[in-house]
Amino acid sequence: MRPRTIRFGKGVTIHLLEQLKQEVLEANLDLPKYGLVTFTWGNVSGIDRESGLVVIKPSGVPYDELRAEDLVVLDLDGKVVEGKLKPSSDTPTHLALYKAFPTVGGIVHTHSPWATAWAQAGRSLPALGTTHADYFYGEVPCTRPMTREEIQGAYELETGNVIIETFEGKDPLQIPSVLVHCHAPFCWGKDAHNAVHNAVVLEETAKMAFHTYQLNPNTVPMDQNLLDRHFLRKHGANAYYGQS
Amino acid sequence: MRPRTIRFGKGVTIHLLEQLKQEVLEANLDLPKYGLVTFTWGNVSGIDRESGLVVIKPSGVPYDELRAEDLVVLDLDGKVVEGKLKPSSDTPTHLALYKAFPTVGGIVHTHSPWATAWAQAGRSLPALGTTHADYFYGEVPCTRPMTREEIQGAYELETGNVIIETFEGKDPLQIPSVLVHCHAPFCWGKDAHNAVHNAVVLEETAKMAFHTYQLNPNTVPMDQNLLDRHFLRKHGANAYYGQS
Amino acid sequence: MRPRTIRFGKGVTIHLLEQLKQEVLEANLDLPKYGLVTFTWGNVSGIDRESGLVVIKPSGVPYDELRAEDLVVLDLDGKVVEGKLKPSSDTPTHLALYKAFPTVGGIVHTHSPWATAWAQAGRSLPALGTTHADYFYGEVPCTRPMTREEIQGAYELETGNVIIETFEGKDPLQIPSVLVHCHAPFCWGKDAHNAVHNAVVLEETAKMAFHTYQLNPNTVPMDQNLLDRHFLRKHGANAYYGQS
Amino acid sequence: MRPRTIRFGKGVTIHLLEQLKQEVLEANLDLPKYGLVTFTWGNVSGIDRESGLVVIKPSGVPYDELRAEDLVVLDLDGKVVEGKLKPSSDTPTHLALYKAFPTVGGIVHTHSPWATAWAQAGRSLPALGTTHADYFYGEVPCTRPMTREEIQGAYELETGNVIIETFEGKDPLQIPSVLVHCHAPFCWGKDAHNAVHNAVVLEETAKMAFHTYQLNPNTVPMDQNLLDRHFLRKHGANAYYGQS
Repeated sequence: MRPRTIRFGKGVTIHLLEQLKQEVLEANLDLPKYGLVTFTWGNVSGIDRESGLVVIKPSGVPYDELRAEDLVVLDLDGKVVEGKLKPSSDTPTHLALYKAFPTVGGIVHTHSPWATAWAQAGRSLPALGTTHADYFYGEVPCTRPMTREEIQGAYELETGNVIIETFEGKDPLQIPSVLVHCHAPFCWGKDAHNAVHNAVVLEETAKMAFHTYQLNPNTVPMDQNLLDRHFLRKHGANAYYGQS
Repeated sequence: MRPRTIRFGKGVTIHLLEQLKQEVLEANLDLPKYGLVTFTWGNVSGIDRESGLVVIKPSGVPYDELRAEDLVVLDLDGKVVEGKLKPSSDTPTHLALYKAFPTVGGIVHTHSPWATAWAQAGRSLPALGTTHADYFYGEVPCTRPMTREEIQGAYELETGNVIIETFEGKDPLQIPSVLVHCHAPFCWGKDAHNAVHNAVVLEETAKMAFHTYQLNPNTVPMDQNLLDRHFLRKHGANAYYGQS
Repeated sequence: MRPRTIRFGKGVTIHLLEQLKQEVLEANLDLPKYGLVTFTWGNVSGIDRESGLVVIKPSGVPYDELRAEDLVVLDLDGKVVEGKLKPSSDTPTHLALYKAFPTVGGIVHTHSPWATAWAQAGRSLPALGTTHADYFYGEVPCTRPMTREEIQGAYELETGNVIIETFEGKDPLQIPSVLVHCHAPFCWGKDAHNAVHNAVVLEETAKMAFHTYQLNPNTVPMDQNLLDRHFLRKHGANAYYGQS
Repeated sequence: MRPRTIRFGKGVTIHLLEQLKQEVLEANLDLPKYGLVTFTWGNVSGIDRESGLVVIKPSGVPYDELRAEDLVVLDLDGKVVEGKLKPSSDTPTHLALYKAFPTVGGIVHTHSPWATAWAQAGRSLPALGTTHADYFYGEVPCTRPMTREEIQGAYELETGNVIIETFEGKDPLQIPSVLVHCHAPFCWGKDAHNAVHNAVVLEETAKMAFHTYQLNPNTVPMDQNLLDRHFLRKHGANAYYGQS
């Protein structure tokens, strides 16, 4: 939706990062707006694939004080190239996902309460209706519990690795969210804005699915034909939803 | 409540459509106001029965950007007669309902979370108390699952057809809502405003009924005499609620 | 809290009713403010015990349009003595309660969703903790189902009668609320403001008790000593909560 | 975060109390802001450890009327040294906790609905995920029921005593909250602001844990390694979350 500058060299790349910073700032501010975060329990990042640079929220800064210049710019190895503040403590998770999922342009982590309840219950979120099918092409998986070694080692990096393991054989843009066991969701998308959009959807579908199972504990995942129909009317070559 | 212009000819009909557009615009804007929609997950239409023209929300346009001139005017065969944007992807469902239910003047579709949970659970919403009885003269039915052929065919039209099948022998203005299996509610009324009003009521009663069953899984539908009393004090010749 | 005018004659009584109207207006406007009502699903009244006149909300008027001059003044026999609009359809219930409960100065009816769920489930709301005990000296009872004759007869009056029957041997100011079976709560208090206050408390305690039973289905009513302690530190001669 | 004045004598101590009053005022006003209280169902205090003076909310004063000069200053024996209003009826509980927990600088009591539901159910709140682990180093305990003698005696003091008994062998700053059986939570922290922060967290984790058990009744407390990792990345010598 936003026009992207054509890049010719270093000067223009810098300009693009200013735009990316603005996008990442807005996406972070959308977290409290959509009720996805309490205090500082969340962070959004975005990547410029050409330069391989990532823009991410600084650690522990309240959203109502956050400004574009507070954002931290890092390369994919985690080296800070711009910014005076420490990046989010979850940065190694973000970087691992950007490396493993080359089509992903933005990532968000929250402790949004409905999705977190599913993560704490250790349950994947099945596709129970068209709201889910419009965005997630099948169940949103819950990762396996992390091992003692993973937890005591490079924990945030290993969090990324267990997500990547969970998505083996899956297209991350077709199921743009994961529930990290006993933790909370990570969501992503083609850019930071889209990642937050998916985080809102995940929270809504987690809430709906919770109530669905309470009403009918024997609910089974939705018909595959209906799942196909709804996902594909919004995604891919034959999409016919929206104006474009 | 709103004064309706007496129509004499084509010029006046055009005037009426401007009024209908305004009504449909306001009814669409009521969806976020009443918390019935996330993002663009909903649409309202209204019909001018004399000309047979329907005004409906365009597909995928955010509510805070929506203006009267964005609305799309179609005839009952789905031919666009005014408007530059694509109509809601659910338009064939709306048109099918207008054709089958001649007393209906407005239709709304949302994914409001409580009603959607019932739809995903595949459960009709029984009349459990007077809140329900004031608006719905009996249970709000859930449609049967759609067949593979219906889903892969003219899906949105078939959604309308399965609703119509569900209402065989029922008066749609006495039960102005339906739960589409594994999908979400459609609601209607004498005009667009009234349709949204009923969508709000459905969401409230779906929430109350959910909690009622959690408190008492053996709850049975309410006494028929009480249902009669409440529905008929608000509807029909002997109504005595309100100022008119 | 509000200074009450000493009344000497008819002129001053009229002045008092103006004050009562203002109180009843504010109490009605508090219903949407505290999230107790959807649309016009509620009404508050207040009584001037000296003149025996009751001020009540008109039927079906939206809260955001309600003005003091719209309120209806009636005597205890239901004869309108002032006001151009029809009084609430629930007026006969209010009047029956004022006649039977001489210490009550204000009454409110809502369909607040948590309390209504208990009413629809046909369950009395037990005292499960100090929040409840601070306001209700024991369980808030649910009425028996009304008979066919009561429903088809003077229904709103009979609703009052079944509440009165439920409170036989009880002090209505010690348990200032009731759940009407398959319907919704009625609450009351020493004046209209206090009645709405109790309606807010009922909704909160109904919500808390719902979740308590979900967490522990074997929860039993609270210890009687604790109930005594909390109710009596806020009510009666030995109260020590607050500034007065 | 806030600069604290170095104290040399009585004049400066008075200055510090003005600052403490301001902190306690703001912390009290945060209760309605974060949705933790209905009406006046809550109170915050803070202590100046050097002088041993406590600042606490007056009893029954609405938050929107509360000013710094309304706050009450007491010594640890409960003697009022400043203030014209009666202190919170829960003051003896606060004082008992300040005496027993010398590292605590602020205390808050609310009837926040999710935490209260756990307290009414008589269930301790187990650590089910990282949201909990970021703040509470293990389960938040529920006290035993109080005896008849405790309830009929110096009830508010005994409430403090039963909390202290519950924390025997525990570090109150590692688990800065308690659920008082059939009552509601008390929370604390290094100062009044931090106590309210913990009260918000408790309410969120109580909500999440409720839904977790509904989704999976066999949920067990989280892995100890994960609990260690999350608590210790935010607390203690090796903390690496945030900017300091």
